[in-house]
Amino acid sequence: MTQRPLFHQVSIVGLGLIGGSLGMALRRRRLARRVIGFSRKEATLRRAKARGAIHDGCTELCPEWLGSSDLVVIATPPLSVPKIAREIAKLTRHRFVLTDVASTKGGIVSALERGLPGRISYVGSHPMAGSERSGIEAAGAKFFEGAPCIVTRTRRSSPQAVSRVSALWRAVGGRPVVLTAKEHDRLVSQISHLPHLSAAALTLVPESRAARLAAGGFTDSTRVALGDPQMWTEICLTNSREIARSLDRFIDQLQLLRKWVAGKDRTRLRRTLGEARRKRKSLGR
Amino acid sequence: MTQRPLFHQVSIVGLGLIGGSLGMALRRRRLARRVIGFSRKEATLRRAKARGAIHDGCTELCPEWLGSSDLVVIATPPLSVPKIAREIAKLTRHRFVLTDVASTKGGIVSALERGLPGRISYVGSHPMAGSERSGIEAAGAKFFEGAPCIVTRTRRSSPQAVSRVSALWRAVGGRPVVLTAKEHDRLVSQISHLPHLSAAALTLVPESRAARLAAGGFTDSTRVALGDPQMWTEICLTNSREIARSLDRFIDQLQLLRKWVAGKDRTRLRRTLGEARRKRKSLGR
Repeated sequence: MTQRPLFHQVSIVGLGLIGGSLGMALRRRRLARRVIGFSRKEATLRRAKARGAIHDGCTELCPEWLGSSDLVVIATPPLSVPKIAREIAKLTRHRFVLTDVASTKGGIVSALERGLPGRISYVGSHPMAGSERSGIEAAGAKFFEGAPCIVTRTRRSSPQAVSRVSALWRAVGGRPVVLTAKEHDRLVSQISHLPHLSAAALTLVPESRAARLAAGGFTDSTRVALGDPQMWTEICLTNSREIARSLDRFIDQLQLLRKWVAGKDRTRLRRTLGEARRKRKSLGR
Repeated sequence: MTQRPLFHQVSIVGLGLIGGSLGMALRRRRLARRVIGFSRKEATLRRAKARGAIHDGCTELCPEWLGSSDLVVIATPPLSVPKIAREIAKLTRHRFVLTDVASTKGGIVSALERGLPGRISYVGSHPMAGSERSGIEAAGAKFFEGAPCIVTRTRRSSPQAVSRVSALWRAVGGRPVVLTAKEHDRLVSQISHLPHLSAAALTLVPESRAARLAAGGFTDSTRVALGDPQMWTEICLTNSREIARSLDRFIDQLQLLRKWVAGKDRTRLRRTLGEARRKRKSLGR
């Protein structure tokens, strides 16, 4: 490829499923001259190098590598993002674009926009390419292909940074969608956080004798409950209000269905199941 | 194959996904000398013949073919099963084994055990190989492979019929599980009927703007909502009490999660999500 790479050097902090996949996609598509990875675990750095996710890496954040990066991506669980961003700010003096990939945005975006020096252009990201798997071994260069990748815009955001970060996700195969942090948290609570809690609750209902009867319908419906409990707890804690609202809407809908099932209300059941099918059909398989 | 076929002639009433797949599996595996299909639609009979599901068929139940069948399988939606069984009884005079494949068993089993002459050995079945698809075009000879196939046993059941019907499902690749009709309805409400209603409710929660953010987690979690609304309404109507109970357990669990999310109860969230993951893991992917 003779095209100029999108970035000179990208630093990725956290080399799990998302960080590792981003490194692999950047290198495979030659979108950055150099990809640097940070992970507390030496073994993860070794695997990330072996899998072609990073050129080099370090177990600690270091000013040399951060200082020569025009893009820094924090790919760690939600609760740790603000602290890591502040550390990165302390270790650098240059201008660069910073983004994160956490599944909740409100708290993180407001903490980072207020707490970072003006030379750091922060824009939040959330590539919705999650999976129930995790870690560098599950990562892949094609991970973001076709995935909606949310980029948050606020009054404080630099338009250049919004467009650079959107270009990043487009370049790795994703579909950038620009939203405010508030919109993100509301919509994502409905389409991602709620399904996770629903799957967890659904998994807990059947008595043990029912397990051997589980077929594809049950395993599909509960697959996301395989996700990392620690990360999902952090998601619940950092988007608590919107998730509680989505749970309320869900419980209200279930209460209606329960009433119609108990009352054998054929007409309302038929109509509501038909409406659900039409809505689900519009999303494809 | 020189092995003696399991059945001389099998009549299948209803050539949808289950009936059609059963015919294909019986013929492919040479488990019956002859497979006869009944469907009100001429076009379905033609497709079933073309797809190798039946040797011959008829748009109306006819005494000639039913009278020479040692196994009759009713593969129509739950509400229609008792009526069709009574018609079959009127049209025949010989001894044979009768089963159905409906997803609810209590009402059907008690109606059929009381309403049929003693020469007809009825045993209920429920092959849990459903899918969100339906119709003869979606059918396949491998449809039952690995699927739990429930066979109901009551005080009135003939042990020979239970073992013949169990042998049928084993022969087409399924895993027969013998339960009482009551056990069936309770366990299946938890592992199949509840997930369907949950998926329907989950599909209805997101506002329209959230649709373009739907990723694999949402589509997996709601896939079963693509199922036929008419059939699922009949399932709700014929297993109303157990489904309402399962919905209550599910709503209780969701209320707990909602309380912990709103109260940011990290410990309980972490513990419950961990418990759900362990339980889900034991079921495989």
